[in-house]
Amino acid sequence: MQDYPAPLAALVDELRRLPGIGQKTAQRLAFHLMKAPEGEVQRLAAALAGFRAALRLCTVCNAVAEGELCAYCADPARSDRTLCVVEEPLNLVVVERTRDFKGRYHVLHGALSPLSGVGPEELRIEGLLERVRRGGVEEVILATSPTVEGEATAVYLARLLKPLGVKVTRIAMGVPVGADLDWADEVTLAKALEGRREY
Amino acid sequence: MQDYPAPLAALVDELRRLPGIGQKTAQRLAFHLMKAPEGEVQRLAAALAGFRAALRLCTVCNAVAEGELCAYCADPARSDRTLCVVEEPLNLVVVERTRDFKGRYHVLHGALSPLSGVGPEELRIEGLLERVRRGGVEEVILATSPTVEGEATAVYLARLLKPLGVKVTRIAMGVPVGADLDWADEVTLAKALEGRREY
Repeated sequence: MQDYPAPLAALVDELRRLPGIGQKTAQRLAFHLMKAPEGEVQRLAAALAGFRAALRLCTVCNAVAEGELCAYCADPARSDRTLCVVEEPLNLVVVERTRDFKGRYHVLHGALSPLSGVGPEELRIEGLLERVRRGGVEEVILATSPTVEGEATAVYLARLLKPLGVKVTRIAMGVPVGADLDWADEVTLAKALEGRREY
Repeated sequence: MQDYPAPLAALVDELRRLPGIGQKTAQRLAFHLMKAPEGEVQRLAAALAGFRAALRLCTVCNAVAEGELCAYCADPARSDRTLCVVEEPLNLVVVERTRDFKGRYHVLHGALSPLSGVGPEELRIEGLLERVRRGGVEEVILATSPTVEGEATAVYLARLLKPLGVKVTRIAMGVPVGADLDWADEVTLAKALEGRREY
């Protein structure tokens, strides 16, 4: 016998497919939604059903956009001289939250991962090279993740970009601000030592 | 300027209303759903939009049901002699997972909480008393949460139930199985000592 009626079980099953949501969290969410105001549940259902049709990828940088251009490419106040390359659209949001970067972005939609069958052809690399070839870009900041895949992607891109005469930089890897040094793993700490700067 | 297009922001806002889901998790889920197979997203949207209309509360025990009776009340193999009283429908699922209880349930849909304005009238208590008065129930197990509210509810119910000539028990509170004793808080440990049993 199932623990709860089929419509509830179906919802739990769908919620479980979401990243980071296991059986217990899915159950908790489903039972919460059963008691939540009906309007709230229907708004969530409608947002889910409709949001993708209203979205596309920016024709310049591949970020999420509503029209032809994303908000970052359309913003006349941003500088064309610096490009920040990230793996995923969400990475862009995270960089943006720093409020420190006022250039443009380029979203690769992935990272090189031979084991998962992701080669250079699967990533949006050609558009990046074209933007640099067209001129006006002085620096490309490689802000791919500090993972094996992200690092490999950065090295690969640097090799393609440097011959185009552009400055290519990589975001610093080191100990995260605010964390106790004791919690840093040895690879991160080695990177932090390697990247040390003089006072 | 918003960090991402309005349809995506709307979805993030709706996801954030869910319990235990903050801004970062909501973003991660929304961006995941943007890349997930379309069918998966639509199945989740449909499950959300439709599951409540297909559900009602069991007319006997107030558990979630598809028809007049929930699966537990409809099951002829379960005993009518023992009632297990829980606060919420999800609590019932958790008790059921133990596979140790073969009686019937009663769901209160809340716990007494004067500070939140939840008095006895807000809970499904009358139906419980009626079931006991009708006869055939030998024991009522109070499985409300081991919180201030759950404990107050159990004490309140015990006072109403005992005069009806039924055995009233409370689930044991103590140190959770498998956890290191060092992690137990002093209130739990005090309960565990108080409820100690002879070998």
